[in-house]
Amino acid sequence: MKKTLLLIPVIIVAGVISLNFSSDKLQVGEKEADADSLMISRIYKEALNNGKAYDQLGMLCARYPKRLSGSAGAAGAVEFCRDLMKDMKLDSVWLQPCMVPHWERGTVERGTVTSGKVVKAAKLCALGNSAATPAGGLQAEVVQVSTFDELAGLGEKGVKGKIVFYNHPFIDELISPFDAYGEAARYRTRGPAEAQKLGAAGVLVRSMTHAHDNNPHTGNTRFDSLQVHIPCAALSTEAADMLSTMLKKDAKLRFKLELNCRQLPDVLSYNVVGEIRGRELPKEVIVLGGHLDAWDLGEGAHDDGAGCMQSVEVLRVMKALDIKPRRTIRVVLWMNEENGLRGANAYAAWAMKCGETHIAAIESDAGGFSPRGFGISGNASQTANFMRWKPLLEPFGIGDLHTGGGGADIGPLDTLGTALIGLEPDQQRYFDHHHAQTDVFSAVNRRELLLGAAGMCSLVWLIDRKGI
Amino acid sequence: MKKTLLLIPVIIVAGVISLNFSSDKLQVGEKEADADSLMISRIYKEALNNGKAYDQLGMLCARYPKRLSGSAGAAGAVEFCRDLMKDMKLDSVWLQPCMVPHWERGTVERGTVTSGKVVKAAKLCALGNSAATPAGGLQAEVVQVSTFDELAGLGEKGVKGKIVFYNHPFIDELISPFDAYGEAARYRTRGPAEAQKLGAAGVLVRSMTHAHDNNPHTGNTRFDSLQVHIPCAALSTEAADMLSTMLKKDAKLRFKLELNCRQLPDVLSYNVVGEIRGRELPKEVIVLGGHLDAWDLGEGAHDDGAGCMQSVEVLRVMKALDIKPRRTIRVVLWMNEENGLRGANAYAAWAMKCGETHIAAIESDAGGFSPRGFGISGNASQTANFMRWKPLLEPFGIGDLHTGGGGADIGPLDTLGTALIGLEPDQQRYFDHHHAQTDVFSAVNRRELLLGAAGMCSLVWLIDRKGI
Repeated sequence: MKKTLLLIPVIIVAGVISLNFSSDKLQVGEKEADADSLMISRIYKEALNNGKAYDQLGMLCARYPKRLSGSAGAAGAVEFCRDLMKDMKLDSVWLQPCMVPHWERGTVERGTVTSGKVVKAAKLCALGNSAATPAGGLQAEVVQVSTFDELAGLGEKGVKGKIVFYNHPFIDELISPFDAYGEAARYRTRGPAEAQKLGAAGVLVRSMTHAHDNNPHTGNTRFDSLQVHIPCAALSTEAADMLSTMLKKDAKLRFKLELNCRQLPDVLSYNVVGEIRGRELPKEVIVLGGHLDAWDLGEGAHDDGAGCMQSVEVLRVMKALDIKPRRTIRVVLWMNEENGLRGANAYAAWAMKCGETHIAAIESDAGGFSPRGFGISGNASQTANFMRWKPLLEPFGIGDLHTGGGGADIGPLDTLGTALIGLEPDQQRYFDHHHAQTDVFSAVNRRELLLGAAGMCSLVWLIDRKGI
Repeated sequence: MKKTLLLIPVIIVAGVISLNFSSDKLQVGEKEADADSLMISRIYKEALNNGKAYDQLGMLCARYPKRLSGSAGAAGAVEFCRDLMKDMKLDSVWLQPCMVPHWERGTVERGTVTSGKVVKAAKLCALGNSAATPAGGLQAEVVQVSTFDELAGLGEKGVKGKIVFYNHPFIDELISPFDAYGEAARYRTRGPAEAQKLGAAGVLVRSMTHAHDNNPHTGNTRFDSLQVHIPCAALSTEAADMLSTMLKKDAKLRFKLELNCRQLPDVLSYNVVGEIRGRELPKEVIVLGGHLDAWDLGEGAHDDGAGCMQSVEVLRVMKALDIKPRRTIRVVLWMNEENGLRGANAYAAWAMKCGETHIAAIESDAGGFSPRGFGISGNASQTANFMRWKPLLEPFGIGDLHTGGGGADIGPLDTLGTALIGLEPDQQRYFDHHHAQTDVFSAVNRRELLLGAAGMCSLVWLIDRKGI
């Protein structure tokens, strides 16, 4: 049982920092580190004792669980978040318009396997951008592949008119689930397009998850601009295993896929923006945020209501502690990360010509789990400055700082020379929930969420005070 | 999206390690680090791909959810774990006897607050070692205190014949929930005894948790050897808040406490022991384990079925990889950690005279959550050796090595000069489950559990290879 109290980190940090200073500078370094550490303690105290992010996430998920771009839920969430920030008496709150795609899941998602007299239901969901099946469904033979090489090996002759089934599992032995996702997700994002080129009638993809359960995980798939969209769906891992087993016994079994999703015209939507203006350098901006749109099977709690409400919490904590930042601290709740990045691109286009300097951007889009650190994509100087803060953040359990990191929504700011930083929570449970009906508020833990917000606020405070 | 593959940690580790070697030694250091890192990769691969700990924990929790010392469930769990290890074809499996206390919760746990015409139920559970209430229940006034100082201030006059209510919440701003527990739990462990000395008729304690819900958290309380036991119970945090609010309006309200728990004669029980004998130094022992007994409200999943099954998994992985250890690797599933430590003391007493040297002991008893590192309590040399392995463990997310740590069951081995090491998972969710009906198998994540087992196995392998 450890009984360390909060004061101890301050002392440790001062000790560690001081090693890097000559004896004259030592006192300055110590005092600065003391002051920094005390401020970080105050930030954590405020967030953990009085944090609102958890309750606000609960409200967002309860009122607007379905927030896919273009939907009524997304529009409602925009209003909700604007009102939330307006009530905080920030220096300004505004909506930044962007046109977003509007794909609708529809009401029918059904898979049925028929092998001789055996008829089995296979749990699935449509992938974003999928076409609907013809009236009465698409019934065809299934050809299973694990890789694109296997698909190429089959050629048009082996694929034409059939349903291609990408059964590529997560590599369990990778320590980072994001690595496993990165390795497997190409079969969801590009699998349907590649299969269509060979004449496939439809595509099934094994869900992108470590979990063995009956929850299909949706997500976007991309076709080339003039390519015909075909029906494509994700099977739950249990359904994928069932289909694979049945195919071993009967390679000629028939799969019936029924989807009535549809692509509608683009819709006007918005990024929601709120800020505290800098008192010394208002044209230097630290932007932070998450994305407000979410896949529509769950409630978009971890992906990415969590990141949105953590970002709003950063501003709340600053106001509560009467921190008047030197630079402008701006929260952006981006629209359309999941299937288009239109909001991110609109913001970056605006940032390019608004006459401000974006010195750093921080995104939280890896779930509201217990935070472990931050990853940075920046130049050598930005990276070196960032790494210096490790001893300040370690006592708060968020000191795992490393290169590589950022977020999809802040990615387009790369061309501005902005330091791009991602909050990195523990990842191990993330893909149990990601894009599935299990991404619900009840899977979020209050302390974990608030610890992430406090870590983000601490980093914002350091960047604001010291530059990067 | 990071796409690092598993090979990269090996290279990084080799690089980091090599910094500490002169140019001649550099190649040796590099090769050794390469070999170590490759072995750790193999351990993780085996655990993550073929791990059995999760399924075995599921069986333990389903068959023997109630495993408080002396119970039929505890006896069944002993048989279950012995059979489990026997089936693994270890070098030996045996039961080590110890007499354990036998306290039974009974069937009645009820709290009722009456204030004028208002009658409300207050959710509670008996604390281990509590006496039963008299027939018809104990009805009395309630006196609320936050600290022992406040209790002392009231004196016998203010306490006699009343129910003392310790309403001491967790300090939310402490980053480590174990620190918050350490600070608050004394009111559960010693509160009833202190109140009884002043003539209290009964005691209520606010549950030891950050959570705001209606689940009471049980746990042990200790009376002095000749002291009369009084009825004492833990209120859910919601019930504690309700009672506290009602007391502000009506300091004379009456609380009726009904418990029919009882203390029965001590029972013969067992530690369950299994080992792989060392091929070079069989008399040098690395012991690892968790405790098999558990509080009886939930299933003892995180506390501590997880630690037990992780420890068994370590032996399974070693057998699967055909690792023939130099030293004896022994798993001990201790009995009676929760309310007596009789198993731990029996093992330590035996260890003192068995003619073996216990070089290290590793306990997993902080939940089956995503592992972050290990804490050590050892001498300077043991600590230095342990710290050297940080770069080897960091690529696997378990590199947070620090001093301070161990576990209740390995504590008594301290007198033997054994290095005492505790697995340290992420703690943030632990006290949502600890000693409550929410400590169930469904709250355990397969990957998180297996990552902890793989980390323990890696550390065992390093200690076995290199000594400590």
